[in-house]
Amino acid sequence: MLEKLKEEVYKANLDLVSYKLVLFTWGNVSGIDRESGLMVIKPSGVDYGKLTPADMVVMSLDGKKVEGELNPSSDTPTHLELYRRFPEIGGVAHTHSTFAVAFAQAGSEIQPYGTTHADFAYGAIPCTRDLTRAEIEEEYELNTGRVIADWFESRNIDYNAVPAVLVHSHGPFTWGKNADAAAKNSAILEEVAKMAYLSEQLGAAPASQAIRKKHYMRKHGPNAYYGQK
Amino acid sequence: MLEKLKEEVYKANLDLVSYKLVLFTWGNVSGIDRESGLMVIKPSGVDYGKLTPADMVVMSLDGKKVEGELNPSSDTPTHLELYRRFPEIGGVAHTHSTFAVAFAQAGSEIQPYGTTHADFAYGAIPCTRDLTRAEIEEEYELNTGRVIADWFESRNIDYNAVPAVLVHSHGPFTWGKNADAAAKNSAILEEVAKMAYLSEQLGAAPASQAIRKKHYMRKHGPNAYYGQK
Amino acid sequence: MLEKLKEEVYKANLDLVSYKLVLFTWGNVSGIDRESGLMVIKPSGVDYGKLTPADMVVMSLDGKKVEGELNPSSDTPTHLELYRRFPEIGGVAHTHSTFAVAFAQAGSEIQPYGTTHADFAYGAIPCTRDLTRAEIEEEYELNTGRVIADWFESRNIDYNAVPAVLVHSHGPFTWGKNADAAAKNSAILEEVAKMAYLSEQLGAAPASQAIRKKHYMRKHGPNAYYGQK
Amino acid sequence: MLEKLKEEVYKANLDLVSYKLVLFTWGNVSGIDRESGLMVIKPSGVDYGKLTPADMVVMSLDGKKVEGELNPSSDTPTHLELYRRFPEIGGVAHTHSTFAVAFAQAGSEIQPYGTTHADFAYGAIPCTRDLTRAEIEEEYELNTGRVIADWFESRNIDYNAVPAVLVHSHGPFTWGKNADAAAKNSAILEEVAKMAYLSEQLGAAPASQAIRKKHYMRKHGPNAYYGQK
Repeated sequence: MLEKLKEEVYKANLDLVSYKLVLFTWGNVSGIDRESGLMVIKPSGVDYGKLTPADMVVMSLDGKKVEGELNPSSDTPTHLELYRRFPEIGGVAHTHSTFAVAFAQAGSEIQPYGTTHADFAYGAIPCTRDLTRAEIEEEYELNTGRVIADWFESRNIDYNAVPAVLVHSHGPFTWGKNADAAAKNSAILEEVAKMAYLSEQLGAAPASQAIRKKHYMRKHGPNAYYGQK
Repeated sequence: MLEKLKEEVYKANLDLVSYKLVLFTWGNVSGIDRESGLMVIKPSGVDYGKLTPADMVVMSLDGKKVEGELNPSSDTPTHLELYRRFPEIGGVAHTHSTFAVAFAQAGSEIQPYGTTHADFAYGAIPCTRDLTRAEIEEEYELNTGRVIADWFESRNIDYNAVPAVLVHSHGPFTWGKNADAAAKNSAILEEVAKMAYLSEQLGAAPASQAIRKKHYMRKHGPNAYYGQK
Repeated sequence: MLEKLKEEVYKANLDLVSYKLVLFTWGNVSGIDRESGLMVIKPSGVDYGKLTPADMVVMSLDGKKVEGELNPSSDTPTHLELYRRFPEIGGVAHTHSTFAVAFAQAGSEIQPYGTTHADFAYGAIPCTRDLTRAEIEEEYELNTGRVIADWFESRNIDYNAVPAVLVHSHGPFTWGKNADAAAKNSAILEEVAKMAYLSEQLGAAPASQAIRKKHYMRKHGPNAYYGQK
Repeated sequence: MLEKLKEEVYKANLDLVSYKLVLFTWGNVSGIDRESGLMVIKPSGVDYGKLTPADMVVMSLDGKKVEGELNPSSDTPTHLELYRRFPEIGGVAHTHSTFAVAFAQAGSEIQPYGTTHADFAYGAIPCTRDLTRAEIEEEYELNTGRVIADWFESRNIDYNAVPAVLVHSHGPFTWGKNADAAAKNSAILEEVAKMAYLSEQLGAAPASQAIRKKHYMRKHGPNAYYGQK
């Protein structure tokens, strides 16, 4: 079932390797078929070199394994919560990419220092609050998804305009219209994080609202003129 | 038309990838045929892996598309303004390379800390002023070119001797005698920016005027003795 | 003798190169056959490109060469001491990887700033005390092993839960169930060290005990649920 | 003439590229035949991809071109001065490698923070004084060699034990028994410089004299036991 989606999710997982975002078995990408409500995700702890599209695991939105011989990624409940709470996304990616993790470990959001950031996201990339001890000990991965979604909902911030988050003391999750876009956003986030790190060492201040809006809108707004029709 | 120039511009765009200066579709290089007054530039938002020389877009110096099925780079008006204001250049390149962007985001010029810089440019690599809100909202890309050219003109600084600029909160533009030279200058600028970043962390001061002049002149002056005849 | 172990140790040594942890002939990995009490290790100062499995040197646990035409790694007495003092390990690796060495040269332990660290080790990666002048002048490599093992024993810290150490002014040693695991741990340590370096520059504090325990246990504890059965 | 030496020098120049120490045509390596007193060096400003062994230029020790159609490297007088003043060396390399240049631009010596450094050199890697304006304007490249050699002679420091120097505001020169060793020393110096940079950011102090002597001597002393016979 969902062979085309499995192929897409498989390929997006391998892209994490070619984007140099993961070491060994770290990282995972999923995609969802909104019609059937089924999510396809990488199995847990399998070498990227040994993965095949048929190894992808199919899960229902409420967390039941529908197809697959392997265990799904241990971060599966986080992915599922993001699909439930962010109904317009079609893919989710999680990595431990170096500079994004550094900001997550420092508990710092990534300030919008320039147009590279603004081409990607409208506003800072948030860092979640720490999970409580209770949230960690029970349903940890589900609570990770809740804390992410709560951040966006409580501030009424559009998750489509900020397609990434840093989980405190952990690392980034990114999302997009499909698995491919989610993985690409992980690569862009890492580059944006590296630039932000260097800019802070050089004493930068966030870019003006006018230029950030201009760049975000020329690429993502209703009158966008970047790229081809 | 201009098949040879299209091939050169195509190749210089791919060079940005092999120089590791761009991610995904970021960056663009153009070249100009001064005789006909026509500029050839990369199309907007097309994967480097799918580009062909025939995809290059031909523009007139006053901004009309002369040939090409695709939209030109969204930064096209910046390139055109640079060709109009800097009449001796034959190529322009724009990237979001990491260290050059970090200086641009910090609003800092790149000080000439040593001979690597002096082999490339005579004096600091400037960072432009911020564009005003009005300049951003109307004709943003054209105004970007104007702010760059104004910087050089108002200070009477030779754009041939400083073949690069940082646009505030954005990133670098470089130029040269042709598209190939412009792309190479983007690679050199990134290395010079990285060295400057590290040198500042180590507490460096700019190099003496005497050694900077020596290195610039032995490579670019009337009695240059670097390289072959 | 021990042809299969020689092949494993040979491959783990080459892995150090593909993990980009070593320059020229730097670094060495060993493995032990606990039944016979024989250790297999890389010869000293031989180019990785010229190594063959047959070049691996076989040593007894008390330091006598049992087979091999070449001199064993000069760090052999350190490896042997670790096998004698840490009876559950099956492989040891030593590199001069950049960020791990930087912490060793600074005499700093690597604080557990996040879950990447906690997936790898439970607690900080220690940095040993400086060796005394007497320890350096006589039996230097053996004393290096003693200072490492003493650190763990004197603090009653489980070497299985912290599979790495930084030797003061020198660099990292890592270990694991076999040569392959030891080499992989060197790669993970380097990434964890790089993340810790960047996190410190950004002002990070160590992660909460609750999240560190959660991640260590979900991967290594008795009820681990990361990976496949 | 000197075909074998030309081949060695050619290969050592290409090694600078594979060691990732040079961009475009930057960098140069030479070797000397002490019997005939002839030096072989890379031509100036030629792409590494287009070099052939036959392009290498043969120079006499007093600076006359003996064979070769191309201009020798513009740094030729520096190489020649080093061969005249350091009679035991057989090869010289010059690069603009990133971290070594950063220390040179900061005018800082590289402190011996650990054993990676001590395996390479016995003591700090010096940074020369600035050249005077007169030294720059006349015989600049020759004076660069003089300032390097004077540093070692005036302090009575053995150039064999410290096979590298940083020229103020410029970059590193390294040497060794032949061209291959000189190029390898450029690669080691860059790694040592990167480690020193990171160590300083982490607050390191130089390693003890005892451990530095131990490591230098076990690799380079009369009773060295690193490597094979």
